[in-house]
Amino acid sequence: MLKERKYKAAMRVDETMIEKLVEQLTLEEKIGMIHGAGLFRTGGVERLGIPSLFMSDGPMGVRSEFLDGKWEAACTTEDYVTYLPSNSALASTWNRELAYESGKVLGCEARGRGKDIILAPGINIKRSPLCGRNFEYMSEDPYLTAQMAVPFVKGVQENDVAACVKHFAANSQETERLWVDTRVDERTLQEIYYPAFFEAVEEGECYSVMGAYNKLNGEHCCHGRHLLGRVLRRDWQYDGLVVCDWGGIHDTKEAAQAPIDIEMSVDNNFDEYNFARPLLEAVKKNEIDESDIDAKIRNILRLMFRLKIIGAEAENRKPGTYNTASHRDTVYQTAKESIILLKNNENRLPIQKKGLKKLGVIGLNAEKVHALGGGSAEIKALYEISPLLGLHMELGGNTQIVYAKGYKEPIEAEIGDTNWQESSLDRQETENATSMELAGTRRKAKLSEDRERQLEIERKALLEEAVAVARNCEEVIFVGGLNHDYDVEGLDRENMKLPYRQDELIQALLEANPNTIVVIYAGSPVDMTKWADKAKAILWSYYAGMEGGRALAEIIFGEANPSGKLAETFVKSEKDTFPYKLGEFAKEEIVTYKDGVFVGYRYYDKVKVEPMFCFGHGLSYTEFSYNNLLIQVEETNMPTVLVAVDVTNVGEREGAEAVQLYVHPKKSSLERPDQELRGFQKVLLEPGEKQKITFQLDMKAFSYYEEEKNAFYIEAGEYLLRVGASSRDIRLESKVIFEKSYIVENS
Amino acid sequence: MLKERKYKAAMRVDETMIEKLVEQLTLEEKIGMIHGAGLFRTGGVERLGIPSLFMSDGPMGVRSEFLDGKWEAACTTEDYVTYLPSNSALASTWNRELAYESGKVLGCEARGRGKDIILAPGINIKRSPLCGRNFEYMSEDPYLTAQMAVPFVKGVQENDVAACVKHFAANSQETERLWVDTRVDERTLQEIYYPAFFEAVEEGECYSVMGAYNKLNGEHCCHGRHLLGRVLRRDWQYDGLVVCDWGGIHDTKEAAQAPIDIEMSVDNNFDEYNFARPLLEAVKKNEIDESDIDAKIRNILRLMFRLKIIGAEAENRKPGTYNTASHRDTVYQTAKESIILLKNNENRLPIQKKGLKKLGVIGLNAEKVHALGGGSAEIKALYEISPLLGLHMELGGNTQIVYAKGYKEPIEAEIGDTNWQESSLDRQETENATSMELAGTRRKAKLSEDRERQLEIERKALLEEAVAVARNCEEVIFVGGLNHDYDVEGLDRENMKLPYRQDELIQALLEANPNTIVVIYAGSPVDMTKWADKAKAILWSYYAGMEGGRALAEIIFGEANPSGKLAETFVKSEKDTFPYKLGEFAKEEIVTYKDGVFVGYRYYDKVKVEPMFCFGHGLSYTEFSYNNLLIQVEETNMPTVLVAVDVTNVGEREGAEAVQLYVHPKKSSLERPDQELRGFQKVLLEPGEKQKITFQLDMKAFSYYEEEKNAFYIEAGEYLLRVGASSRDIRLESKVIFEKSYIVENS
Repeated sequence: MLKERKYKAAMRVDETMIEKLVEQLTLEEKIGMIHGAGLFRTGGVERLGIPSLFMSDGPMGVRSEFLDGKWEAACTTEDYVTYLPSNSALASTWNRELAYESGKVLGCEARGRGKDIILAPGINIKRSPLCGRNFEYMSEDPYLTAQMAVPFVKGVQENDVAACVKHFAANSQETERLWVDTRVDERTLQEIYYPAFFEAVEEGECYSVMGAYNKLNGEHCCHGRHLLGRVLRRDWQYDGLVVCDWGGIHDTKEAAQAPIDIEMSVDNNFDEYNFARPLLEAVKKNEIDESDIDAKIRNILRLMFRLKIIGAEAENRKPGTYNTASHRDTVYQTAKESIILLKNNENRLPIQKKGLKKLGVIGLNAEKVHALGGGSAEIKALYEISPLLGLHMELGGNTQIVYAKGYKEPIEAEIGDTNWQESSLDRQETENATSMELAGTRRKAKLSEDRERQLEIERKALLEEAVAVARNCEEVIFVGGLNHDYDVEGLDRENMKLPYRQDELIQALLEANPNTIVVIYAGSPVDMTKWADKAKAILWSYYAGMEGGRALAEIIFGEANPSGKLAETFVKSEKDTFPYKLGEFAKEEIVTYKDGVFVGYRYYDKVKVEPMFCFGHGLSYTEFSYNNLLIQVEETNMPTVLVAVDVTNVGEREGAEAVQLYVHPKKSSLERPDQELRGFQKVLLEPGEKQKITFQLDMKAFSYYEEEKNAFYIEAGEYLLRVGASSRDIRLESKVIFEKSYIVENS
Repeated sequence: MLKERKYKAAMRVDETMIEKLVEQLTLEEKIGMIHGAGLFRTGGVERLGIPSLFMSDGPMGVRSEFLDGKWEAACTTEDYVTYLPSNSALASTWNRELAYESGKVLGCEARGRGKDIILAPGINIKRSPLCGRNFEYMSEDPYLTAQMAVPFVKGVQENDVAACVKHFAANSQETERLWVDTRVDERTLQEIYYPAFFEAVEEGECYSVMGAYNKLNGEHCCHGRHLLGRVLRRDWQYDGLVVCDWGGIHDTKEAAQAPIDIEMSVDNNFDEYNFARPLLEAVKKNEIDESDIDAKIRNILRLMFRLKIIGAEAENRKPGTYNTASHRDTVYQTAKESIILLKNNENRLPIQKKGLKKLGVIGLNAEKVHALGGGSAEIKALYEISPLLGLHMELGGNTQIVYAKGYKEPIEAEIGDTNWQESSLDRQETENATSMELAGTRRKAKLSEDRERQLEIERKALLEEAVAVARNCEEVIFVGGLNHDYDVEGLDRENMKLPYRQDELIQALLEANPNTIVVIYAGSPVDMTKWADKAKAILWSYYAGMEGGRALAEIIFGEANPSGKLAETFVKSEKDTFPYKLGEFAKEEIVTYKDGVFVGYRYYDKVKVEPMFCFGHGLSYTEFSYNNLLIQVEETNMPTVLVAVDVTNVGEREGAEAVQLYVHPKKSSLERPDQELRGFQKVLLEPGEKQKITFQLDMKAFSYYEEEKNAFYIEAGEYLLRVGASSRDIRLESKVIFEKSYIVENS
């Protein structure tokens, strides 16, 4: 029996209005509405006042304009926008308020740019650190992802723009992404890969969902009768819009009969899309029933009413805006809270600004800007403050900054005429994104032996220059890491090694000046084993948006106190990860998720692998003590567990702490993770200030998914509640006992 | 007899410290300190802890970095900065507070970029609308210029950076600027061309002054025994630094013996500068006395103490910063108050945003950005919001904006290999500024007949496209004007005509849609006679900095109420100006200022020329009434005249008014201007709000300069005080009578 979907007022739409419109539409008009009529819009029906739906990429800002009918930049000057920190950065803030504010910025700018749907947030689970698109995703943990995704979606949609959670589902690799068949058991999907989508739909009331490129258990996600039909539409009672990832539909009939509403693609033969002429003919031949199309039209029209594109409220649709000072402030606050202090021996950081005469800054990422890279996440940022610029701004004119590049990236001129078509990137996407294309070219470039010899000499000179700077400056900051040649749509990494021989450079710098601060600016973890033990201080920044360089500089010099925490485990090497060990990653045909629910820290806990830095880790310039863990169970229909803990800032400066709550089942009839994140609260405390932090856990927090029951199951027994500063820095624990078992229905 | 200079505390320097250092310096070390050792720095003396002095261009922001020893961009990423509205825009605000805040931004950014002297503000008097550099200057009026320059200088210098008022003096044309001999009588200099410099030194306590390129009355300004020796150093008791404009010194001996302290130039043969080897040899040969050099060194060291570069206070020197949110806010506020509503028949403006579905925007200046042009005023702006981007931001996604370029600028590819060396630009400066060079090339380009025919077709197509847009949109905004090919250092304009056949286009647009709003974005007035009477609304923006496009859009749509007023007369055509009529402008050898004190409105009042828009003109969306003009004379040593007037906002929205006070002498023994600006106050009023505005006039406000007495003279008699909204919109007048005459000593 279908449950009734309990939408809040804003979600409710007068369905009779929809039916009236459906009745008036001709088959041809309906066909026009369900496929791309431009690269980022559907067709409209002028006669009935139904406009095109305008969509845009943009997890980090609203993407630049393309020509309507050709994959080519429109080269307008009106599409410069606010550049937000990536989702990986946002999740590291562990701050729901910033997720909400970031969503508001993105939604407001999308509306300001005239968009109806912004193709964000990306909420896939980081199964392997090597996935090229991880920088666009939040976490390896479904709870953290869901908790950040829900306010983000709400923030976006306050602007009369639809968020579009993507990519549904289990799209955790880029290699052969259009064809790879991801085999995942139901429990794993329900516990790991679905929850963020479920919460985005249920709590976030997300207006649209994007079907993933990959197959899931043999079925293309965008044709998914199981995934879209049973899970999304039936179990979750979702009546919003489903759009395919661009080019994700491969069979007219299968997709037409599946509950997916709009076909978009990267080609400009719009009339030949599956949902265009082929579908029209199939309906006319009675191979497909027109009612299948009506179902899609209803979802499209429902979206249009919700967004006030049509209907009585159309006059009141918000217009949006972009590039405002307040947007920049949100971006700056988010960047500031996203930066993670991984290591700080001897209180190496912050550096004292006063009296500092000469600062050495080394590494290309100090001056590199990243907005225009990464694939569909690329944007035309109004500006981007690099770390080097940020440091100059922070220090001003009394400190000399000596900059040395230190290492070298391959450049176009060196690479020559590499034939992109022959590379292994997705077959359909050669014309897609320039930044993807260039990344592939640069990653795969083979140079002549002569040029290699010459480069060797150049590299040695750069290294020597950098070492000299490290020797001659009072303070030295290395800023290296990755860039969007590595953190990029369409390409997974082969390993976690720092490119461009940075390991060698960092070691040389630490030898020349053991006080060298190491800053890694990247979208996914890197192998630090060669130097992490020697470095006294390590700072981490994901792609942190247009104000990232300022935020980083403020943290280095103590204007700001770091409060970011890892939303993913930093393993020492890809060799420690399950997908790598079993070869079940980046395969081309079938990838079986044999790791099951043991993803991220759930796996490292299980096999007792010591990570480089654990999930939830992140230091501060102050310290926090945890006291008085209290647990109370309220029994009504289902028990609710109330947890309280006192957190005190025992250091000497203001700071924020993301207090984490993990649940550990003492025993279980089937294998479960040792502990799972079930709560977190970020709290800002003055020196000496104490605050009582409370968590309210529903029973799902103690559950696992029971496949046979299609439900979440809570076994009777003892559970430990662990509260701490990271997944491996548990400060207090206490137990709760359930005398009987419970079932929580799925949704 | 020399008067004692009454410096405020901050200006006082322990002269014994200076003498001690002078004693320790060798002749060679002194020589090193008084000439460029890099393109923008002098030599230091490490042994004594005396560093280089670092200078930078930058009336509109701190200029990008050059290589130390070569006129070539350093191509660093750390020199993106805040882009301020030009001085012409700043003066149009008639807001001393914004001048102070703008100065603070520029000074803070200069210090943040490690500079000691920022070569700003430019305060030359706009004698002709055709001077290529007028956009860098404030006004045709010496009082307004001085009143804006003083707080600007103070704002800069609060940051432990020296302002450098330029170009001293009477540098009001670009043609042959290095060699032209400007002949000006003493009265005219004292009443028109000196006052802003005098006030900047006297009231602003400006730490440095730049000698102009031109000759003044036969003597190079930078060699100027009269200008620098008698006027600046003796009469004004100036003990600050004097630096030449780059390449402005032409004779070693003459300059060495003149009170100019530092020679800078555009060449990189630093040892061959006049103040380098040639001077060293001349001293060794006893042709020049070493004490002449010591005088310069004292001024340099005095500056260094004032800036805390050396001395006990060095630890406390402010470090500065740049690109902050608060700097952007100042820039935005300034832009907003600088925009001038020239005409607004039928209350055409503001446009109602609500319900506007389709806006046409026409004209290249809508999308053009200007920061990187103009010569030495060019900067690397962190960003620049164009009018088109600003309109998009303001309107958001509910309004479609249809943009048509409308006209065409020549582009490099069309121009081909024009030989710059043969053009008439300054001989010494061919390597100087790329933006100057390109401007000249583009202005002088001659195309082949074939290409011209082809262009004719392209132009016709652009015009037709634009007219179609004007016909099909509910509202139409034209944004044209000039750019830094016309408003540029080194080149004067030949006439005031709008380039690129904009007159033709604007007429066609007004015919197609008589409601078309005309926005002119330019640095100096243009001939509007072809269409001004047909246009219902005309808005004017000078180069308004990085937030200029936003400010403009807010004014067009009524988010902001315009309050800018013209700081220069907009004549109908250059033919109405005195320099043009007599051919006494842009001559190559001698230019005689036969107009004397009759510059700007002083001339148009005298010859009764009707300007297009008069000095002080600027409309608002609200209206102001003027009442109760009261005058009171306080007699102490010298009389002081107190003026009060009530100004009321009688309209329906908040607005600001620049209330202006002019003095008219009823009769005079020598010919004087009909009226002269002697006071202004900008006041912000709520609807219905009334405020009493007061002015305090000292006797100089009633004076003219008496050459024989070398003093300002106030004749006994009757003077009218006129208060109004512009120089030709006088609302109230009243008289004051002096029974006897007075003398005000010069300084």
